[in-house]
Amino acid sequence: MKRIIVVASGGLDSTVLLHHVVATGAAVRSISINYGQRHSRELEFARLNSRRLGVVHQHVDLACLRDVLTGSSQTDDRIPVPEGHYEEKSMKATVVPNRNMILLSVAIGAAVAHQYDEVAYAAHSGDHAIYPDCREEFVIALNAAAQLCDWHPVQIDRPFIHLTKADIVRRGAELEVPFASTYSCYKGQPVHCGVCGTCVERREAFYIAGVPDPTAYLDSTPIQNLLGKKKTAKS
Amino acid sequence: MKRIIVVASGGLDSTVLLHHVVATGAAVRSISINYGQRHSRELEFARLNSRRLGVVHQHVDLACLRDVLTGSSQTDDRIPVPEGHYEEKSMKATVVPNRNMILLSVAIGAAVAHQYDEVAYAAHSGDHAIYPDCREEFVIALNAAAQLCDWHPVQIDRPFIHLTKADIVRRGAELEVPFASTYSCYKGQPVHCGVCGTCVERREAFYIAGVPDPTAYLDSTPIQNLLGKKKTAKS
Repeated sequence: MKRIIVVASGGLDSTVLLHHVVATGAAVRSISINYGQRHSRELEFARLNSRRLGVVHQHVDLACLRDVLTGSSQTDDRIPVPEGHYEEKSMKATVVPNRNMILLSVAIGAAVAHQYDEVAYAAHSGDHAIYPDCREEFVIALNAAAQLCDWHPVQIDRPFIHLTKADIVRRGAELEVPFASTYSCYKGQPVHCGVCGTCVERREAFYIAGVPDPTAYLDSTPIQNLLGKKKTAKS
Repeated sequence: MKRIIVVASGGLDSTVLLHHVVATGAAVRSISINYGQRHSRELEFARLNSRRLGVVHQHVDLACLRDVLTGSSQTDDRIPVPEGHYEEKSMKATVVPNRNMILLSVAIGAAVAHQYDEVAYAAHSGDHAIYPDCREEFVIALNAAAQLCDWHPVQIDRPFIHLTKADIVRRGAELEVPFASTYSCYKGQPVHCGVCGTCVERREAFYIAGVPDPTAYLDSTPIQNLLGKKKTAKS
């Protein structure tokens, strides 16, 4: 039986991934890492969903990394969270320095400690070009390091790498994921704003997937209007 | 001018490295990371030496990683710190899961945030085979990832990789490093124990280098007696 640690942020993608990996019958643990993100509210949903699924969950509070990983709207309250579509240049403000290497290195450390074989995270085909640490070549290099960091090699796995976010919503619907118990908004307020990059992406994914979106949004402008003529809304 | 972040633990090697890098005329920052190590006492010396050198120093308290990186004598007080020479198998108890990837990933994050070019750490030629994350191939893979984690590539640099620890002591003596303001003991007590792997290595390095060791050790058995017939003490 495979032994897999899922990096679970409490967002939509990683929550579907957690359900997906549990459904494979693997032995699963989940790990959530507070790296000082403005939207740390998401992490509570990782704990809730793990508990409901009977998965051992570890919360790691590295919130003081906020003082290290500066210059991002997600770690510095003085930098406003941009609104709009992920394809816009303004979204670069949301990039957190070396975020993925840090999160994965901690999860790999947990895998080594527990002699787990894989660390799975919810990268998908729609991950955006503005995020350098979502690049294929970055993950290949880091995975090579993960094979060598211990005598017990750890594989970085991305089960959703060939899925779009809409595909992930469809997979979540199949798995009866409680979408309302996931959180995506970059603004980090109790109710999803509906207009930041990740809210727009979330709404777009439900719209394209044809799955009802149970999320309450502060700005309830129909997603079709927000997307306008964007090619991503053509379906 | 090169812009270099030095990973400074407060131990002998990284303190000499900090002085060495400052002496090159580079712009230097230092970063110390508490990953929950039993010997976190060392970190205070990183702060002291950075301040004396006029280097901006950042302390990052990730001590809760102690609950993630389990199974090591250095993160679990229930596991005794082995005594003896690093070449002994018992020293494997001191390996901390994925330690170097985690430390370097945080330092790389700081480098990206400050647009620094390099992260330097004090790996040396005598780093021990029991530590998988000291292997050359591990560092090559992680360095490849560091080039790709951001649009601003970061180079992992190991200025001492061709030096022995005795060479580092000699370099420190040239640079007038205050060796008494460094801390190496794995047991983490106020006074160096003198008999754990890292104390023995430290004493051996001064002995081989022919440099007076200003360190007070609880066990003051002459290092020659501790080393016995070990080939490393032949000089």
